[in-house]
Amino acid sequence: MSNEQLDALRDELDKVNLQILDLINERASLAKKIGQVKDTGGKNRFDPVRERNMLDLIAENNKGPFETSTVQHLFKQIFKASLEIQEDDNRKALLV
Amino acid sequence: MSNEQLDALRDELDKVNLQILDLINERASLAKKIGQVKDTGGKNRFDPVRERNMLDLIAENNKGPFETSTVQHLFKQIFKASLEIQEDDNRKALLV
Repeated sequence: MSNEQLDALRDELDKVNLQILDLINERASLAKKIGQVKDTGGKNRFDPVRERNMLDLIAENNKGPFETSTVQHLFKQIFKASLEIQEDDNRKALLV
Repeated sequence: MSNEQLDALRDELDKVNLQILDLINERASLAKKIGQVKDTGGKNRFDPVRERNMLDLIAENNKGPFETSTVQHLFKQIFKASLEIQEDDNRKALLV
């Protein structure tokens, strides 16, 4: 394959990267909203059952080529970052 | 907010999770193709300059709420998994 073909694949990859970026930020916004709902409802932010359900749904819908263990690992990192952003919100609220 | 509202937000989050899942798999397929092009072109799979460029593009396009350092960390995990899937391909090719 030529360098032109490599460049075309890379352009496509960059587009997919930016779509993933927008979606993980959309996910973060939703997670923040959920965190706020839980604050008013007196619920804990970290919910292992809910996390397990999300991971199961991801496993059921994984068509590859990534192995299910790989995508679950990546999502656990995303969940962790989302939880941290909720906790930051809470810290800022306490400082007001 | 009510439990119904929490459930609605969670449904939305599940939909976003599945969109992210499809995109990271689409990304993995593209990375595999790029790996194959590089094999025929005699290039190294890991390319720190290309990775830096991708991280810069992500930083330029990050609208939050995630911090740029957070999204870059998440993408580094995705890059790592993509490199591993390319290496698996290579190992399988060597075993044929």
